[in-house]
Amino acid sequence: MSNAYPMSRSHTTQTRLILPPDANQYGSIFGGKILAYIDEIAAIACMKHTGREVVTASFDSVDFVSPAYVGDMLELEAIITSTGRTSMEVYVRVLSRNVKTGEEKLTTESFVTMVAIDEEGKPTPVPAVYPETEKEEKLYKAGLERQKARKEKRKKLKEAIV
Amino acid sequence: MSNAYPMSRSHTTQTRLILPPDANQYGSIFGGKILAYIDEIAAIACMKHTGREVVTASFDSVDFVSPAYVGDMLELEAIITSTGRTSMEVYVRVLSRNVKTGEEKLTTESFVTMVAIDEEGKPTPVPAVYPETEKEEKLYKAGLERQKARKEKRKKLKEAIV
Amino acid sequence: MSNAYPMSRSHTTQTRLILPPDANQYGSIFGGKILAYIDEIAAIACMKHTGREVVTASFDSVDFVSPAYVGDMLELEAIITSTGRTSMEVYVRVLSRNVKTGEEKLTTESFVTMVAIDEEGKPTPVPAVYPETEKEEKLYKAGLERQKARKEKRKKLKEAIV
Amino acid sequence: MSNAYPMSRSHTTQTRLILPPDANQYGSIFGGKILAYIDEIAAIACMKHTGREVVTASFDSVDFVSPAYVGDMLELEAIITSTGRTSMEVYVRVLSRNVKTGEEKLTTESFVTMVAIDEEGKPTPVPAVYPETEKEEKLYKAGLERQKARKEKRKKLKEAIV
Amino acid sequence: MSNAYPMSRSHTTQTRLILPPDANQYGSIFGGKILAYIDEIAAIACMKHTGREVVTASFDSVDFVSPAYVGDMLELEAIITSTGRTSMEVYVRVLSRNVKTGEEKLTTESFVTMVAIDEEGKPTPVPAVYPETEKEEKLYKAGLERQKARKEKRKKLKEAIV
Amino acid sequence: MSNAYPMSRSHTTQTRLILPPDANQYGSIFGGKILAYIDEIAAIACMKHTGREVVTASFDSVDFVSPAYVGDMLELEAIITSTGRTSMEVYVRVLSRNVKTGEEKLTTESFVTMVAIDEEGKPTPVPAVYPETEKEEKLYKAGLERQKARKEKRKKLKEAIV
Repeated sequence: MSNAYPMSRSHTTQTRLILPPDANQYGSIFGGKILAYIDEIAAIACMKHTGREVVTASFDSVDFVSPAYVGDMLELEAIITSTGRTSMEVYVRVLSRNVKTGEEKLTTESFVTMVAIDEEGKPTPVPAVYPETEKEEKLYKAGLERQKARKEKRKKLKEAIV
Repeated sequence: MSNAYPMSRSHTTQTRLILPPDANQYGSIFGGKILAYIDEIAAIACMKHTGREVVTASFDSVDFVSPAYVGDMLELEAIITSTGRTSMEVYVRVLSRNVKTGEEKLTTESFVTMVAIDEEGKPTPVPAVYPETEKEEKLYKAGLERQKARKEKRKKLKEAIV
Repeated sequence: MSNAYPMSRSHTTQTRLILPPDANQYGSIFGGKILAYIDEIAAIACMKHTGREVVTASFDSVDFVSPAYVGDMLELEAIITSTGRTSMEVYVRVLSRNVKTGEEKLTTESFVTMVAIDEEGKPTPVPAVYPETEKEEKLYKAGLERQKARKEKRKKLKEAIV
Repeated sequence: MSNAYPMSRSHTTQTRLILPPDANQYGSIFGGKILAYIDEIAAIACMKHTGREVVTASFDSVDFVSPAYVGDMLELEAIITSTGRTSMEVYVRVLSRNVKTGEEKLTTESFVTMVAIDEEGKPTPVPAVYPETEKEEKLYKAGLERQKARKEKRKKLKEAIV
Repeated sequence: MSNAYPMSRSHTTQTRLILPPDANQYGSIFGGKILAYIDEIAAIACMKHTGREVVTASFDSVDFVSPAYVGDMLELEAIITSTGRTSMEVYVRVLSRNVKTGEEKLTTESFVTMVAIDEEGKPTPVPAVYPETEKEEKLYKAGLERQKARKEKRKKLKEAIV
Repeated sequence: MSNAYPMSRSHTTQTRLILPPDANQYGSIFGGKILAYIDEIAAIACMKHTGREVVTASFDSVDFVSPAYVGDMLELEAIITSTGRTSMEVYVRVLSRNVKTGEEKLTTESFVTMVAIDEEGKPTPVPAVYPETEKEEKLYKAGLERQKARKEKRKKLKEAIV
């Protein structure tokens, strides 16, 4: 299995505090703020895996499962789940944690696709990934199906838009 | 057609400049930054339509079709394309424009779902929308199919994730 | 009318939300924040007109007619109203809109002068503008008088300052 | 001269560094950024004078005399030059200083009018100011003329705008 | 060992990217930016340990061992090393990692003291910590000596300052 | 006393307002924010003294003596107190001032060490400083002792950390 790394090499975590400027006047964090955090941690995971600069190619559907509030902690986690020739699919999970009660809730999970670029900004080949644990195995195996679903969905959307 | 507004009532535009802090060290804007802009303009479109506060429920797949650079202008456009009981689907298109050549390129297009909330932060019913132009008609009609595709895709993703 | 464009070519709009970090602890947006928005939209209008980079030359008196609050929308609008050899006068109007009541109030209106610069940062000639509607005509005609008033006022201020 | 303070009581200075996010891609600071700094230091001067919260009422014409660049220092200085019943006129001068050559240039000077507000956000009377030095005297005496010029100019602008 | 938690409970990590607005015009990150990151991660470690809000009481001497640049990753790590009645000492280590070469360098290490506060903002007792690994043991044992050194140094500084 | 400047040449002041985004949800400013301000003003003091770019070498122990709140003013003051071959020690004092009561409190005082760098980013010699007033004399004389204390403390910390 030459030129392939374990999925765990890309595994990245980040704990953040939600501060007043991250939130609307009712104290709940903006969806756009969370998406920017997801983009940053996905990029870091891909940079660890490739040793390259990367650019965002697409975000798959991101559901905001439950809101998070000023004063909560956000636990972000990212891991590469499959690769193409120059692209990587990254699974990013965001949990919020209430400081006082310790209660954790799923804020969102999503798949982000990033592309590695060389010094001239052109797409460049990336190493493959392989799973080492059962949980990684599951994410990895589901990767192919997700890729297929993404392609079909995009085709349909393209037809629908003028 | 009581309690329904024309789609155009929610139509919102925004022209922005890409500034140095919005971009990586190679001068191209972060995907996360664009997603935050999309979230903001989608929220504004829904606030115009409902006269209510709104929260982000989900982002559909967002493809970054071409990069945009420091010094470019971004033209953002948002319009509500369909509604549920308390939710609204918003189509957001982002073009980049080179100041010197005037060349315009599609940066990304996406569908965002927002939910209107009342004073206590609970989901609250929203007016419907109806199309008035051919272009609006097309976006509107495609809405049902997109809703179906979203539901199926989410089901599959849920099964794939531990 | 060679080397002149219609005023409408520079017309630029922007709808924004006032967020908590934009405001003081009583919830009203900082004057300085609005001025920064005015500067940005005026620059965009001039970049559309000239296809050039621009720098701010002066702000005319800006009256803050009524305050705007966190949660309000700001509707900004800019259009070039007259030109000199290398400079452009831009009219910028800012309305605030209460999301719930829909009530719109004039926040401020102002005239900003920008200068186009070439690749070496030197002032460079700009195309003229011509009005096409009655409203544009009025703004355009008043341009000369404003230019005169500006020059006189500056002379007086200069004399008054050590 | 009861309920009046010396002008010097409001005198405020601030030295700042121009950092990369404050500037466009050619390295010169945005006009809007400087206006936001002017607004902040003018507010501080008025808060020192009154012990009250203040809001911005108007900016007089602000000329950007010379550009300032990333790496330069900005020396801001503010002092109240005249007062109305609830309003204060503040003179703000901004110099830029090249770190290596020590060369200082006038970036801009302007007059800002602020209004003091009480706990309910209503305008509230302010103490008068009196000059103590020759330089202060000059600024103070010119205040009346500036007030007259401002009033006339606004009247003309109002007539010119639809 | 009632009301004590293992040191590992407070262990917090964060991987960040250094972006253009975090750095001076030569591309190296500001010391003040790193200090702000250290403050945030130390606060998170203490919030995890106590389930309380915390405020910063002091920063011990922080040496910037080697610079970090735009495009580098920062790996931050924080762990509570000793506790007083209402205070906690947190060890924070910051490594920088070059994306392309993978080279890691120590940027800084420091000890931060935080105090837990109750709902009225008053200091409130905190649980103790105990080490479980050899590395934790070493940090823990050295804690007492550091506390002594801190007290003496502060005394000397106080005498030296007017 | 060739190649030496009076301490006062580096003297720098800055008055700032604490705004909502600078503070946690209870309204008190983040320690990390104050440290970033200290870093900026210390750098300005050193740039004034040397006419060079500078980088932060170390922060000595910083005690947060009393909290400061949104709406307070911060008065920062920096002065170089001693120099090495390429380094400078800067004393930075931060006071907070309540706008309404005028009450001033010491927020923090600290010593920051900065190093001057040349065009290639290498450390470069700096001019010495000499005191001119009694207060400066005291700070200056205490400089040697602080330098000794710093060196010893660092040695002890190094031994204590794995």
